[in-house]
Amino acid sequence: MTTVPPAECVFCAVVAGTTAAHVVFDDDVAMAFLDTHPVFKGHVLVVPRSHYATLADLPAAEIGAFYERVQRISNAVMIGLDANGTFVAQNNVVSQSVPHLHVHVVPRRRKDGLRGFFWPRVRYADDAEAADYAARIADALGLAVTSGPGTSLPPDPPR
Amino acid sequence: MTTVPPAECVFCAVVAGTTAAHVVFDDDVAMAFLDTHPVFKGHVLVVPRSHYATLADLPAAEIGAFYERVQRISNAVMIGLDANGTFVAQNNVVSQSVPHLHVHVVPRRRKDGLRGFFWPRVRYADDAEAADYAARIADALGLAVTSGPGTSLPPDPPR
Repeated sequence: MTTVPPAECVFCAVVAGTTAAHVVFDDDVAMAFLDTHPVFKGHVLVVPRSHYATLADLPAAEIGAFYERVQRISNAVMIGLDANGTFVAQNNVVSQSVPHLHVHVVPRRRKDGLRGFFWPRVRYADDAEAADYAARIADALGLAVTSGPGTSLPPDPPR
Repeated sequence: MTTVPPAECVFCAVVAGTTAAHVVFDDDVAMAFLDTHPVFKGHVLVVPRSHYATLADLPAAEIGAFYERVQRISNAVMIGLDANGTFVAQNNVVSQSVPHLHVHVVPRRRKDGLRGFFWPRVRYADDAEAADYAARIADALGLAVTSGPGTSLPPDPPR
Protein backbone atom coordinates (compact mmCIF):
# COMPACT_ATOMS: atom_id res chain seq x y z
CA MET A 1 0.00 0.00 0.00
CA THR A 2 1.65 3.24 1.02
CA THR A 3 4.68 4.13 3.08
CA VAL A 4 3.74 7.81 3.08
CA PRO A 5 2.26 8.77 6.43
CA PRO A 6 -1.28 9.92 5.83
CA ALA A 7 -1.66 13.33 7.38
CA GLU A 8 -4.52 12.03 9.49
CA CYS A 9 -2.76 8.94 10.93
CA VAL A 10 -2.96 9.15 14.71
CA PHE A 11 -0.03 6.76 15.22
CA CYS A 12 2.16 8.77 12.85
CA ALA A 13 1.27 11.77 15.00
CA VAL A 14 2.33 9.89 18.13
CA VAL A 15 5.60 8.93 16.44
CA ALA A 16 6.11 12.56 15.41
CA GLY A 17 5.46 13.68 18.97
CA THR A 18 2.51 15.87 18.06
CA THR A 19 -0.07 13.68 19.79
CA ALA A 20 0.25 12.78 23.45
CA ALA A 21 1.06 9.24 24.51
CA HIS A 22 2.57 7.42 27.46
CA VAL A 23 5.66 6.15 25.66
CA VAL A 24 7.42 3.08 27.01
CA PHE A 25 9.89 2.49 24.17
CA ASP A 26 11.23 4.48 21.27
CA ASP A 27 14.07 3.84 18.86
CA ASP A 28 14.71 4.11 15.14
CA VAL A 29 12.58 1.05 14.34
CA ALA A 30 9.56 1.11 16.61
CA MET A 31 7.67 2.99 19.24
CA ALA A 32 5.55 1.54 22.03
CA PHE A 33 3.01 3.39 24.12
CA LEU A 34 0.00 2.70 26.29
CA ASP A 35 -3.34 2.00 24.66
CA THR A 36 -5.63 4.69 26.03
CA HIS A 37 -8.45 2.16 26.52
CA PRO A 38 -6.64 -0.93 27.72
CA VAL A 39 -7.97 -4.46 27.93
CA PHE A 40 -5.92 -4.59 31.14
CA LYS A 41 -3.84 -1.76 32.55
CA GLY A 42 -0.39 -1.82 31.01
CA HIS A 43 -1.74 -2.79 27.57
CA VAL A 44 0.82 -1.47 25.10
CA LEU A 45 0.73 -0.85 21.36
CA VAL A 46 3.93 -1.40 19.38
CA VAL A 47 4.12 0.39 16.03
CA PRO A 48 6.80 0.69 13.37
CA ARG A 49 7.95 4.29 13.08
CA SER A 50 7.27 4.13 9.36
CA HIS A 51 3.68 4.07 8.22
CA TYR A 52 2.72 0.58 7.07
CA ALA A 53 -0.97 -0.15 7.05
CA THR A 54 -0.93 -3.87 7.88
CA LEU A 55 1.41 -6.80 8.41
CA ALA A 56 1.28 -7.45 4.66
CA ASP A 57 2.85 -4.04 4.05
CA LEU A 58 5.84 -4.47 6.37
CA PRO A 59 8.92 -5.03 4.15
CA ALA A 60 10.46 -8.44 4.72
CA ALA A 61 13.80 -6.83 5.58
CA GLU A 62 12.17 -4.96 8.48
CA ILE A 63 10.23 -7.85 10.01
CA GLY A 64 13.03 -9.13 12.22
CA ALA A 65 13.90 -5.76 13.73
CA PHE A 66 10.25 -4.95 14.39
CA TYR A 67 9.29 -8.24 16.05
CA GLU A 68 12.48 -8.20 18.08
CA ARG A 69 11.11 -5.00 19.64
CA VAL A 70 7.76 -6.72 20.17
CA GLN A 71 9.56 -9.53 21.99
CA ARG A 72 11.46 -7.10 24.22
CA ILE A 73 8.31 -5.20 25.06
CA SER A 74 6.42 -8.39 25.83
CA ASN A 75 9.22 -9.36 28.21
CA ALA A 76 9.17 -5.91 29.79
CA VAL A 77 5.41 -5.99 30.29
CA MET A 78 5.74 -9.30 32.14
CA ILE A 79 8.66 -8.17 34.26
CA GLY A 80 7.59 -4.60 34.89
CA LEU A 81 4.02 -5.45 35.80
CA ASP A 82 4.63 -8.81 37.47
CA ALA A 83 2.38 -10.47 34.91
CA ASN A 84 2.24 -14.24 34.38
CA GLY A 85 2.10 -13.94 30.61
CA THR A 86 1.18 -11.77 27.66
CA PHE A 87 -1.29 -11.71 24.84
CA VAL A 88 0.38 -10.45 21.65
CA ALA A 89 -2.01 -9.74 18.81
CA GLN A 90 -2.75 -7.69 15.78
CA ASN A 91 -5.79 -7.12 13.66
CA ASN A 92 -5.15 -6.75 9.97
CA VAL A 93 -7.86 -4.75 8.15
CA VAL A 94 -10.92 -6.14 9.97
CA SER A 95 -11.26 -4.76 13.53
CA GLN A 96 -8.16 -2.64 12.90
CA SER A 97 -9.19 0.73 14.27
CA VAL A 98 -6.08 2.60 13.09
CA PRO A 99 -4.69 1.65 9.67
CA HIS A 100 -1.06 1.81 10.86
CA LEU A 101 0.31 -1.60 11.80
CA HIS A 102 0.18 -2.03 15.58
CA VAL A 103 0.79 -5.02 17.79
CA HIS A 104 -1.12 -5.21 21.05
CA VAL A 105 0.85 -6.47 24.04
CA VAL A 106 -1.54 -7.16 26.90
CA PRO A 107 -0.42 -8.33 30.36
CA ARG A 108 -2.11 -11.56 31.38
CA ARG A 109 -2.59 -13.08 34.79
CA ARG A 110 -3.91 -16.48 35.71
CA LYS A 111 -7.68 -16.38 36.25
CA ASP A 112 -7.89 -12.83 34.92
CA GLY A 113 -11.21 -13.73 33.34
CA LEU A 114 -10.17 -13.15 29.74
CA ARG A 115 -11.41 -15.73 27.31
CA GLY A 116 -11.68 -13.55 24.32
CA PHE A 117 -11.14 -14.37 20.73
CA PHE A 118 -10.51 -18.01 21.20
CA TRP A 119 -14.03 -18.98 22.19
CA PRO A 120 -16.37 -20.21 20.92
CA ARG A 121 -14.76 -22.51 18.39
CA VAL A 122 -16.35 -24.16 15.37
CA ARG A 123 -15.81 -27.56 13.83
CA TYR A 124 -15.08 -28.74 10.32
CA ALA A 125 -17.92 -30.80 8.89
CA ASP A 126 -15.47 -33.60 8.19
CA ASP A 127 -11.85 -34.23 7.38
CA ALA A 128 -12.40 -33.54 3.69
CA GLU A 129 -13.60 -30.04 4.46
CA ALA A 130 -10.52 -29.38 6.57
CA ALA A 131 -8.29 -30.72 3.80
CA ASP A 132 -9.97 -28.37 1.35
CA TYR A 133 -9.29 -25.34 3.53
CA ALA A 134 -5.68 -26.40 3.99
CA ALA A 135 -5.25 -26.85 0.25
CA ARG A 136 -6.66 -23.42 -0.55
CA ILE A 137 -4.20 -21.77 1.84
CA ALA A 138 -1.29 -23.89 0.65
CA ASP A 139 -2.13 -23.11 -2.96
CA ALA A 140 -2.12 -19.41 -2.14
CA LEU A 141 1.39 -19.81 -0.76
CA GLY A 142 2.39 -21.15 -4.15
CA LEU A 143 3.64 -24.28 -2.50
CA ALA A 144 2.68 -27.88 -2.96
CA VAL A 145 2.53 -29.77 0.30
CA THR A 146 5.19 -32.37 -0.23
CA SER A 147 5.45 -35.77 1.34
CA GLY A 148 8.80 -35.20 3.02
CA PRO A 149 9.45 -35.52 6.73
CA GLY A 150 7.18 -33.27 8.67
CA THR A 151 4.46 -33.31 6.07
CA SER A 152 3.71 -37.01 6.06
CA LEU A 153 0.17 -37.16 7.27
CA PRO A 154 -1.06 -40.26 9.01
CA PRO A 155 -4.83 -40.61 9.09
CA ASP A 156 -6.61 -38.40 11.55
CA PRO A 157 -7.44 -40.17 14.78
CA PRO A 158 -11.14 -40.52 15.53
CA ARG A 159 -12.52 -37.52 17.38
CA MET B 1 13.81 -22.22 28.94
CA THR B 2 14.51 -25.30 26.86
CA THR B 3 15.19 -26.02 23.22
CA VAL B 4 14.91 -29.77 23.75
CA PRO B 5 11.57 -31.02 22.49
CA PRO B 6 9.70 -32.50 25.40
CA ALA B 7 8.64 -35.98 24.46
CA GLU B 8 5.04 -35.05 25.13
CA CYS B 9 4.89 -31.87 23.00
CA VAL B 10 2.06 -32.28 20.52
CA PHE B 11 3.44 -29.64 18.16
CA CYS B 12 6.85 -31.30 18.12
CA ALA B 13 4.99 -34.47 17.15
CA VAL B 14 3.27 -32.63 14.31
CA VAL B 15 6.64 -31.27 13.15
CA ALA B 16 8.09 -34.78 13.34
CA GLY B 17 5.20 -36.14 11.29
CA THR B 18 4.07 -38.55 13.96
CA THR B 19 0.82 -36.72 14.73
CA ALA B 20 -1.69 -35.95 12.01
CA ALA B 21 -2.27 -32.39 10.86
CA HIS B 22 -3.55 -30.56 7.82
CA VAL B 23 -0.27 -28.90 6.88
CA VAL B 24 -0.37 -25.73 4.79
CA PHE B 25 3.29 -24.77 5.00
CA ASP B 26 6.53 -26.49 5.94
CA ASP B 27 10.13 -25.43 5.58
CA ASP B 28 13.31 -25.48 7.67
CA VAL B 29 12.10 -22.62 9.88
CA ALA B 30 8.41 -23.09 10.49
CA MET B 31 5.41 -25.27 9.97
CA ALA B 32 1.79 -24.18 9.64
CA PHE B 33 -1.27 -26.37 9.97
CA LEU B 34 -4.96 -26.09 10.68
CA ASP B 35 -6.13 -25.66 14.24
CA THR B 36 -8.43 -28.63 14.84
CA HIS B 37 -10.95 -26.43 16.67
CA PRO B 38 -10.89 -23.23 14.66
CA VAL B 39 -12.31 -19.85 15.63
CA PHE B 40 -13.25 -19.67 11.94
CA LYS B 41 -12.56 -22.32 9.34
CA GLY B 42 -9.10 -21.85 7.90
CA HIS B 43 -7.64 -20.87 11.29
CA VAL B 44 -3.96 -21.80 11.08
CA LEU B 45 -1.26 -22.25 13.70
CA VAL B 46 2.30 -21.29 12.77
CA VAL B 47 5.03 -22.91 14.87
CA PRO B 48 8.81 -22.80 14.75
CA ARG B 49 10.17 -26.27 13.97
CA SER B 50 12.39 -26.00 17.04
CA HIS B 51 10.76 -26.27 20.42
CA TYR B 52 10.58 -22.84 22.05
CA ALA B 53 7.99 -22.48 24.75
CA THR B 54 7.05 -18.83 24.32
CA LEU B 55 7.96 -15.70 22.40
CA ALA B 56 10.51 -14.90 25.11
CA ASP B 57 12.37 -18.11 24.24
CA LEU B 58 12.69 -17.47 20.51
CA PRO B 59 16.34 -16.51 19.83
CA ALA B 60 16.65 -12.96 18.46
CA ALA B 61 18.47 -14.28 15.40
CA GLU B 62 15.46 -16.43 14.49
CA ILE B 63 12.73 -13.83 14.96
CA GLY B 64 12.92 -12.36 11.47
CA ALA B 65 12.75 -15.69 9.66
CA PHE B 66 9.86 -16.90 11.81
CA TYR B 67 7.68 -13.80 11.49
CA GLU B 68 8.39 -13.60 7.78
CA ARG B 69 6.65 -16.99 7.57
CA VAL B 70 3.81 -15.64 9.68
CA GLN B 71 3.43 -12.74 7.25
CA ARG B 72 3.37 -15.06 4.24
CA ILE B 73 0.80 -17.32 5.85
CA SER B 74 -1.37 -14.36 6.83
CA ASN B 75 -1.28 -13.22 3.22
CA ALA B 76 -2.10 -16.73 2.01
CA VAL B 77 -5.04 -17.06 4.39
CA MET B 78 -6.49 -13.82 3.03
CA ILE B 79 -5.90 -14.74 -0.61
CA GLY B 80 -6.73 -18.43 -0.42
CA LEU B 81 -9.91 -17.99 1.58
CA ASP B 82 -11.05 -14.64 0.14
CA ALA B 83 -10.92 -13.13 3.60
CA ASN B 84 -11.02 -9.38 4.23
CA GLY B 85 -8.35 -9.50 6.90
CA THR B 86 -6.63 -11.62 9.50
CA PHE B 87 -6.26 -11.82 13.23
CA VAL B 88 -2.69 -12.76 14.16
CA ALA B 89 -2.21 -13.59 17.82
CA GLN B 90 -0.31 -15.57 20.36
CA ASN B 91 -0.79 -16.36 24.00
CA ASN B 92 2.35 -16.49 26.07
CA VAL B 93 2.02 -18.67 29.18
CA VAL B 94 -1.52 -17.69 30.20
CA SER B 95 -4.20 -19.25 27.93
CA GLN B 96 -1.40 -21.01 26.04
CA SER B 97 -2.75 -24.53 25.69
CA VAL B 98 0.41 -26.00 24.17
CA PRO B 99 3.75 -24.77 25.55
CA HIS B 100 5.38 -24.62 22.10
CA LEU B 101 5.28 -21.11 20.62
CA HIS B 102 2.42 -20.88 18.14
CA VAL B 103 0.94 -17.94 16.30
CA HIS B 104 -2.75 -18.10 15.44
CA VAL B 105 -3.69 -16.77 12.01
CA VAL B 106 -7.46 -16.46 11.80
CA PRO B 107 -9.30 -15.33 8.66
CA ARG B 108 -11.55 -12.35 9.32
CA ARG B 109 -14.50 -11.03 7.39
CA ARG B 110 -16.41 -7.84 7.87
CA LYS B 111 -19.35 -8.34 10.22
CA ASP B 112 -18.18 -11.84 11.12
CA GLY B 113 -19.40 -11.23 14.66
CA LEU B 114 -16.02 -11.53 16.35
CA ARG B 115 -15.37 -8.99 19.05
CA GLY B 116 -13.20 -11.06 21.26
CA PHE B 117 -10.30 -9.99 23.35
CA PHE B 118 -10.58 -6.33 22.69
CA TRP B 119 -13.81 -5.75 24.60
CA PRO B 120 -14.59 -4.74 27.21
CA ARG B 121 -11.90 -2.19 27.91
CA VAL B 122 -10.98 -0.58 31.21
CA ARG B 123 -9.85 2.93 32.03
CA TYR B 124 -6.93 4.32 33.97
CA ALA B 125 -8.07 6.15 37.10
CA ASP B 126 -6.16 9.20 35.94
CA ASP B 127 -3.16 10.25 33.91
CA ALA B 128 -0.80 9.66 36.84
CA GLU B 129 -1.82 6.01 37.01
CA ALA B 130 -1.18 5.58 33.30
CA ALA B 131 2.21 7.29 33.66
CA ASP B 132 3.08 4.87 36.45
CA TYR B 133 2.28 1.85 34.32
CA ALA B 134 4.30 3.25 31.44
CA ALA B 135 7.24 3.91 33.73
CA ARG B 136 7.21 0.39 35.14
CA ILE B 137 7.33 -1.10 31.66
CA ALA B 138 9.97 1.35 30.46
CA ASP B 139 12.08 0.64 33.54
CA ALA B 140 11.87 -3.06 32.79
CA LEU B 141 13.22 -2.35 29.33
CA GLY B 142 16.21 -0.76 30.99
CA LEU B 143 15.52 2.40 29.10
CA ALA B 144 14.80 5.87 30.32
CA VAL B 145 12.14 7.63 28.33
CA THR B 146 14.04 10.55 26.90
CA SER B 147 12.70 13.86 25.79
CA GLY B 148 13.82 13.61 22.17
CA PRO B 149 11.55 13.82 19.16
CA GLY B 150 8.86 11.19 19.35
CA THR B 151 8.92 11.04 23.10
CA SER B 152 8.00 14.63 23.83
CA LEU B 153 4.74 14.32 25.60
CA PRO B 154 2.30 17.19 25.43
CA PRO B 155 -0.40 17.10 28.07
CA ASP B 156 -3.16 14.62 27.47
CA PRO B 157 -6.21 16.16 25.90
CA PRO B 158 -9.33 16.07 28.05
CA ARG B 159 -11.37 12.91 27.62
